Amino acid sequence: MKTLSGLLPLLAFFSAPVLADRVANEPIKPIQAVQVDDPEKVALGKKLFFEPRLSRSGFISCNSCHNLSRGGSDNLPTSIGHNWQQGPINSPTVLNSSLSMAQFWDGRAETLQEQAAGPIDNPLEMAFTHTLAVEVLRSIPAYLDLFEGVYNTRDINIDHVTDAIAVFEETLVTPNGRFDQWLKGDDEALTEQELAGYKTFKEIGCAACHYGEAVGGKDFHRMGIVNQYATENPSQGRYEVTGDESDRFSFKVPTLRNVELTYPYFHDGAVWTLEEATEIMAYLQLGRELPEQDIDNMVAFMKTLTGEQPQIQVPQLPPSQPGTPRPIPFEND
Amino acid sequence: MKTLSGLLPLLAFFSAPVLADRVANEPIKPIQAVQVDDPEKVALGKKLFFEPRLSRSGFISCNSCHNLSRGGSDNLPTSIGHNWQQGPINSPTVLNSSLSMAQFWDGRAETLQEQAAGPIDNPLEMAFTHTLAVEVLRSIPAYLDLFEGVYNTRDINIDHVTDAIAVFEETLVTPNGRFDQWLKGDDEALTEQELAGYKTFKEIGCAACHYGEAVGGKDFHRMGIVNQYATENPSQGRYEVTGDESDRFSFKVPTLRNVELTYPYFHDGAVWTLEEATEIMAYLQLGRELPEQDIDNMVAFMKTLTGEQPQIQVPQLPPSQPGTPRPIPFEND
Repeated sequence: MKTLSGLLPLLAFFSAPVLADRVANEPIKPIQAVQVDDPEKVALGKKLFFEPRLSRSGFISCNSCHNLSRGGSDNLPTSIGHNWQQGPINSPTVLNSSLSMAQFWDGRAETLQEQAAGPIDNPLEMAFTHTLAVEVLRSIPAYLDLFEGVYNTRDINIDHVTDAIAVFEETLVTPNGRFDQWLKGDDEALTEQELAGYKTFKEIGCAACHYGEAVGGKDFHRMGIVNQYATENPSQGRYEVTGDESDRFSFKVPTLRNVELTYPYFHDGAVWTLEEATEIMAYLQLGRELPEQDIDNMVAFMKTLTGEQPQIQVPQLPPSQPGTPRPIPFEND
Repeated sequence: MKTLSGLLPLLAFFSAPVLADRVANEPIKPIQAVQVDDPEKVALGKKLFFEPRLSRSGFISCNSCHNLSRGGSDNLPTSIGHNWQQGPINSPTVLNSSLSMAQFWDGRAETLQEQAAGPIDNPLEMAFTHTLAVEVLRSIPAYLDLFEGVYNTRDINIDHVTDAIAVFEETLVTPNGRFDQWLKGDDEALTEQELAGYKTFKEIGCAACHYGEAVGGKDFHRMGIVNQYATENPSQGRYEVTGDESDRFSFKVPTLRNVELTYPYFHDGAVWTLEEATEIMAYLQLGRELPEQDIDNMVAFMKTLTGEQPQIQVPQLPPSQPGTPRPIPFEND
């Protein structure tokens, strides 16, 4: 008679194919835990991500609209920018953004570094200039020391700033959600309802666009393939980047990772519940009018895509110096 | 001949009085490290401190103006409130605020709990109502579970909310700054310049108002005792609370703890450097025109009042539910 320890290799033999099969065969892939190669650069990038002095007002930081307490989003239809201006489009989550093929809804930035440069000098957002942002940082010796430690120079420029922010953002992945536990072979990780929702998700065609590690972020598609989407938002999506008529009203497929946390939904942020978003997308993209039970199941499945949120210590920002350019919160000052 | 171990009790005998003497005789007292009695309440209060859904816009939290990355302040002359309204007065730091006799520049709140209720329904600040804030929290089961764990009820009200915030704020003390190390007997903790600055600080009379654990916060005094302070800020300070003519233009003495981090200075936030603030206060309150060297020394001393900043993990806020009242970031929505 075999001992328990003699059985273990046999158990491993039978369970390993489940893992290999799921990871290989399912359209969704598990998120890999992040490997930090340069902790000093990540720490600097984290400070800059939380740094309101990259904005004209001294009030808005990356974290204002990509709030790490809130799934990396601001949970507003469109964001609040400098002087309370209304942003043109819903702020996508920063979480797992490194897993997308491109940044912004229209993919106009190819990299996170390129993206990070955008809001700083966007007059609707942080309303600063790259020159002034760098001037602020250069005036603060503690920042110069940090940049020198990472980039071997005190002659810093905006590329150093956005590189550090991007490298920090690359650490903002959310592995080990319940769905990933299931993908890796843990049959107990999902309930029957969640599995039923995932089955429907695949069968009706959602996974044609929402696949891969990020469950999205790999393609551009028209919003409203089968039926038209009505919105007051003027964005023409990818067309504004390519000028190609076939790209009109085409947007980057948003990630469904942590989608439970990143309401409201769509590029116009018009829809507040996952139930409604699911119903609308099935109708617009697939021409399906789904029974409520299917929607509830799919929502239950999508909630299993919430992963471990990054554990972030609030950074301490070095104080301004007498020579530091002052913020301009109000134009009458 | 005595051994080294035989000498140690003798050394302790000689160094103990230094500690006892300094702590007893100096006007500034060391900050005690915080004792957390109820970590669950502190954790709930931390979430609420970072909770933008306590504001009408869903964008402004306590941390927006009392930023724990920036010495518990926003480093603006006056704060940015709902719809980018300009606040009437400089936001005081939340750090060590439990060590003040009262809250706000005019002391109109006796406790931190009373203070916490103010900004939520101040139309210039978070612009919400207590009723709506509580309604938002009540709509989120994860919050109800947390309140039940702390207060044994799901029937939450604004007093529960502000109590939890206040208890979190009580943990925001900054012990073990270099000055406190010196107070406790470490002669190496301060440089000669810093000690010279402290000596001047006491000799010219600063410590008459800036004393105790918080190096301030214990009294109200007129801004401009000897010479008048010119400002465009209309606040009449303590007079607005008491109606007593002798309180006109009298303000709570601000803490000097972490003062290096909490620029700009004074109730109107008009002065950006510690050097200038020191020069002005010596002139206004004490009628002194100080040589630059004295000012530099005092600034060097004041920078030793920067303590260990609270180590705060960014909290995860539970998502809104379909029934959660939605934020109103823009009035045209």
